[in-house]
Amino acid sequence: MNLFWLVPVGSMIALGFSFYLIIWIFRKDPGSEEMLKISGFVSTGAKAYLKQQYKVVSIFFLILFLILLFMAYKGFLVIFVPFAFLTGGFWSALCGWIGMWIATNSSSRTAQGCRESLNQGLRVAFSSGTVMGLMVVGLGLLDLAIWYFILNWWYSFHSVPAGFDKLSAITSTMLCFGMGASAYALFARVGGGIYTKAADVGADLVGKVEEGLPEDDPRNPAVIADQVGDNVGDVAGMGADLYESYVDSIVATMALAAGAGLGIKGVTVPMLIAVCGVIASVLGFFFVKTRRETQKDLILSLRRGVYSASLLIAIFSYLVVVNTLGRNYLGVWGSVIAGLIVGVFLGVSTEYFTSYSFSPTRQLSQTALTGPATVIIGGLSLGMFSTLVPVVLVCLGVLMSFYLAEGRVNYNLGLYGVGLAAVGLLSTLGITLASDAYGPVADNAGGNAQMAGLPSEVRKRTDQLDALGNTTAATGKGFAIGSASLTALALIVAYKERVELLGKPLELSLLNPRLLVGLFIGGMCPFIFSSSLLKSVGRTASKIIEEVRRQFREVPLLKEGKSSADYESCVRITLKAAQKEMVLPALLAILLPVIVGLLLGIEAVASLLVGALVSGFVLALMMANSGGAWDNAKKFIEEGNFGGKGSLAHKASVVGDTVGDPFKDTAGPSLNILIKLMSMVSIVFSGFIIKFSLFK
Amino acid sequence: MNLFWLVPVGSMIALGFSFYLIIWIFRKDPGSEEMLKISGFVSTGAKAYLKQQYKVVSIFFLILFLILLFMAYKGFLVIFVPFAFLTGGFWSALCGWIGMWIATNSSSRTAQGCRESLNQGLRVAFSSGTVMGLMVVGLGLLDLAIWYFILNWWYSFHSVPAGFDKLSAITSTMLCFGMGASAYALFARVGGGIYTKAADVGADLVGKVEEGLPEDDPRNPAVIADQVGDNVGDVAGMGADLYESYVDSIVATMALAAGAGLGIKGVTVPMLIAVCGVIASVLGFFFVKTRRETQKDLILSLRRGVYSASLLIAIFSYLVVVNTLGRNYLGVWGSVIAGLIVGVFLGVSTEYFTSYSFSPTRQLSQTALTGPATVIIGGLSLGMFSTLVPVVLVCLGVLMSFYLAEGRVNYNLGLYGVGLAAVGLLSTLGITLASDAYGPVADNAGGNAQMAGLPSEVRKRTDQLDALGNTTAATGKGFAIGSASLTALALIVAYKERVELLGKPLELSLLNPRLLVGLFIGGMCPFIFSSSLLKSVGRTASKIIEEVRRQFREVPLLKEGKSSADYESCVRITLKAAQKEMVLPALLAILLPVIVGLLLGIEAVASLLVGALVSGFVLALMMANSGGAWDNAKKFIEEGNFGGKGSLAHKASVVGDTVGDPFKDTAGPSLNILIKLMSMVSIVFSGFIIKFSLFK
Repeated sequence: MNLFWLVPVGSMIALGFSFYLIIWIFRKDPGSEEMLKISGFVSTGAKAYLKQQYKVVSIFFLILFLILLFMAYKGFLVIFVPFAFLTGGFWSALCGWIGMWIATNSSSRTAQGCRESLNQGLRVAFSSGTVMGLMVVGLGLLDLAIWYFILNWWYSFHSVPAGFDKLSAITSTMLCFGMGASAYALFARVGGGIYTKAADVGADLVGKVEEGLPEDDPRNPAVIADQVGDNVGDVAGMGADLYESYVDSIVATMALAAGAGLGIKGVTVPMLIAVCGVIASVLGFFFVKTRRETQKDLILSLRRGVYSASLLIAIFSYLVVVNTLGRNYLGVWGSVIAGLIVGVFLGVSTEYFTSYSFSPTRQLSQTALTGPATVIIGGLSLGMFSTLVPVVLVCLGVLMSFYLAEGRVNYNLGLYGVGLAAVGLLSTLGITLASDAYGPVADNAGGNAQMAGLPSEVRKRTDQLDALGNTTAATGKGFAIGSASLTALALIVAYKERVELLGKPLELSLLNPRLLVGLFIGGMCPFIFSSSLLKSVGRTASKIIEEVRRQFREVPLLKEGKSSADYESCVRITLKAAQKEMVLPALLAILLPVIVGLLLGIEAVASLLVGALVSGFVLALMMANSGGAWDNAKKFIEEGNFGGKGSLAHKASVVGDTVGDPFKDTAGPSLNILIKLMSMVSIVFSGFIIKFSLFK
Repeated sequence: MNLFWLVPVGSMIALGFSFYLIIWIFRKDPGSEEMLKISGFVSTGAKAYLKQQYKVVSIFFLILFLILLFMAYKGFLVIFVPFAFLTGGFWSALCGWIGMWIATNSSSRTAQGCRESLNQGLRVAFSSGTVMGLMVVGLGLLDLAIWYFILNWWYSFHSVPAGFDKLSAITSTMLCFGMGASAYALFARVGGGIYTKAADVGADLVGKVEEGLPEDDPRNPAVIADQVGDNVGDVAGMGADLYESYVDSIVATMALAAGAGLGIKGVTVPMLIAVCGVIASVLGFFFVKTRRETQKDLILSLRRGVYSASLLIAIFSYLVVVNTLGRNYLGVWGSVIAGLIVGVFLGVSTEYFTSYSFSPTRQLSQTALTGPATVIIGGLSLGMFSTLVPVVLVCLGVLMSFYLAEGRVNYNLGLYGVGLAAVGLLSTLGITLASDAYGPVADNAGGNAQMAGLPSEVRKRTDQLDALGNTTAATGKGFAIGSASLTALALIVAYKERVELLGKPLELSLLNPRLLVGLFIGGMCPFIFSSSLLKSVGRTASKIIEEVRRQFREVPLLKEGKSSADYESCVRITLKAAQKEMVLPALLAILLPVIVGLLLGIEAVASLLVGALVSGFVLALMMANSGGAWDNAKKFIEEGNFGGKGSLAHKASVVGDTVGDPFKDTAGPSLNILIKLMSMVSIVFSGFIIKFSLFK
């Protein structure tokens, strides 16, 4: 059965339901004038951020668009690729924009909801997150459906490039459009990550330490930049990141279907499984509610949503596989299930290592008793060890999905299975991203309630929502990193198949010296990339510190609260610095595969990608989990353990938290995108590399 | 020409010259009674360490010997292997013992020499280091010569195992004897590393902080453990480490010669190049002297020794290649030169990133102004970035040595070239290890001068020697890590050839899912290993803290200096704890390749090794260089910069230094051995794995 029509339908369900939720949210009481004013500041800051971000990224996209256009003109690429590249970037940016827009508009409404009950607050915040989640999957599916439709129509009337059949011509073009999504996502994640942490440090150092203002004080010119940063990093960055993961996993698997000889049916299956995910996420949404006002009940409520959605996807995807590929390909359904299982346990593992409900983070809190050095060593050690479970999970996922899809009999079918595992893992995105994006909303709601002087039980409720948000943010990162590793793997395989379609058989013998060199350089790449991001955070922070000092110096009535601070200038300066810092890492991702390919041959690019994947995956896990654990170890002490707030142990734990911030919010999550973008660049430039490489 | 007779001659030159130096050192004035007493304490402690270390390691070796014997009985191994394993461990241990013995006996003589002039002190300390360096290469060559002689004789009269010819039977047996060296080295490095850092922390926390004793006070029961630790970690650990690197690189290359079809001549070349290195190191020794008493002159003097030795090796090895393989194989000489060049520049790069004469470490000092968190972020960022040059160097080394040896025409000859690059790099070991092992001697001489109350100009001179020792220790680590990566590469290739000799052709396609899983697990392995070592240092430190507290509590006259502290109990307890902590990491190294091989097939073992090599190499570089830079950033502040001693910046830099200690002295350098030992285990157990693996 050709069920392709379900793809636009699925997209419409996702978009329709998010429009419904947007209207529902906007009908909620936005709270008092004071509350509106505060959320307005954040909203204005967010707009200032967007304006500047789009300017910088546009230039970058324009240059790359022209390069791609020239390459298409020279015959290295199909003419659609440059345009696909642009649309990929556009939709990715749109996802970030919508997410940020709804998040900034929901914070005061969440605070207001918490005046009524915890459940009301949760409903608003979670609805806001769900808008983001469903927009990402809805727009992703829409974009895929449109491109598939256009290409299918075009190649029905026009001849395909030499060496391709119609199907592979379609899928390999669609693959290229993921590059736009990845490129924008890198900017959003890296820029957002540098931005949010630099603003955080700047607001704290000048506002709190030098001027003695309380936390979240509106007189601090950087305080809005700080709050904008939360949205920029955790909402927009995460949204663009997962949009590209989502789209990349689907297009990569579509390309693998063509290679596995499954024809048009195999190509539509990844999209259809994504549709299953959309429907399941919408249904799962209704399982998220809480009656009792406890932390445990909140967690259970979110979990109920994710787990029930996973179960529904398992059932729906069975129907999809049976009705498209037929019963002979039931093994492929097993691959989807493997991905789903890996996704669920990735969350469990991250929670175990980063939540203070479990012993690793509690033990880390204890190391604070002997000072900052032991906290740092302990946190790094914890982060390193925490890579064990996710790596083993992903390994099991690869093996299970490959062998269940009968990879032993049909190698290419097995690889298709690996791709489907990535799609399966990411199919729950609508709801997992919802529980993740809900965090910053709850966080800002807390700030809003505090600044507007709402009653203490409101603040207590927003705190409960916020604490949960910290956990979901950590598990969200684990999910993003784990899914990225499977997606990157699918992309690397797709790269191999694309190169072979271009008429160049790939000999990927592990011990070929050029491949070994590729592995070494690839393995080093995430370290250099992370180093550069860590340095950037420091440099950007120093710029915002200067600006805040300048405002306090030049606007004398500011400190008395009689003239308002220039939030936008802070936002703009931080952003400008962050965007500048971002260029070098982005160039690394784009130029390195091309340079390695030209110098060492097209095979070395494959090993470069594998090397970057292996070390980037482990390093990203370590950084994200160390950072999460340091954060929560500090929170555990702040709750009165090991001396509580203000004790020496607390001070030591603050050092850990500060080190962890750029780990978990800047470097760690950016590594995912780095690896996928490098893979994408390799795919797009493969024809060019084959032609001009020194090694043929 | 068969020049094999040069190997025992070279060995005798090395050993003979070291005996000459030992006698020369012992004829030097050992200083006053007080000085002798102090060095006696360290010597006693060192003996206590050795006694306990041998006990634990013996049990481990006995078990493994019996397993190997059983495997030999079952036909998986040649009967010589279990015995080769034992001798490898024995010689490795002997190297550590001699190095430590001469180092502990030289400290008071170096202090006494410094009373006369800086040059006198340098001569003694450097001679002590040279004894260590030449013992390592001399014993290494002797062991190789004996085994080669025995096996050559045996197989002239007895039949070789099925599938082997005489030459490959010899070389693949000799390869296995490296496993003993590696296993002992892991114990020495890991145990020593945990020991020295735990003792350091223990001595500081109780002695200095709780009891208020000055640094290096003889009443502190842990102070000797601390000084012993320097010898244990930096002398014995480094010696065993480099003994195994040295031997492993030679036997691996010998095995590759058999594969490249170069016959007996190709097999002797690696040993002969090592002989060139011995002669060049002895000659280079005479270039190390200083007239002017400046730091710069000291560095130049040591560099003069290493550079002139490298130059001599380049010339000698030309003669070796021409006179054995003939002019047609001159490309192979190019491989040796490639290795030499990589070795020289590895040192330069490490110095640039870790010495405060250069901007990276100076900038790191500056980050201390804003507190410990920025120091930590800065140091990690520096360490990550510092991996760039060594990785690129090693990559260039691999490519140059492979292609110069005509690897494009004859693939196996190219791989032999890569092996020769490792041998070339390590051929300067006699003198590079000398400048490295000299550091702890100078360090202890300083402590000796301080405690014995020698005039201040003596202390000033030992400080100059010691400061230089810090730099050479860092460059020594860079050299060890870089050489390990090339050696490990040669071992992995040797593994492949051995498996193929066993009748199992290896398909190492990078994108085979089982190989990918191997890469992932391998890439994760160094992180888990490091995590475990970092934790061990913490746990062991807490044990020595208890023991020191106990002694102060139960020996009431101790603090008045009227009864002497029980140094040996401290040494024993630390050692016992360290040895216990060491078992798990050692088991990981030994069991993991076997388990992966049994579950995922013999090919997955190769990718496991490559994955561990890639991520371990980068992680080790990062840890060693971060640690070195933190150490020197602190020293730079102590010299009066950014506020000097006692300032907040100084306190922040101490946090960095404390984090860096287990980085650079425990985890970082142990990773080298981990990778090599895993490769060795894979080689030795390959027959067993082929037979019983689930994947055939």
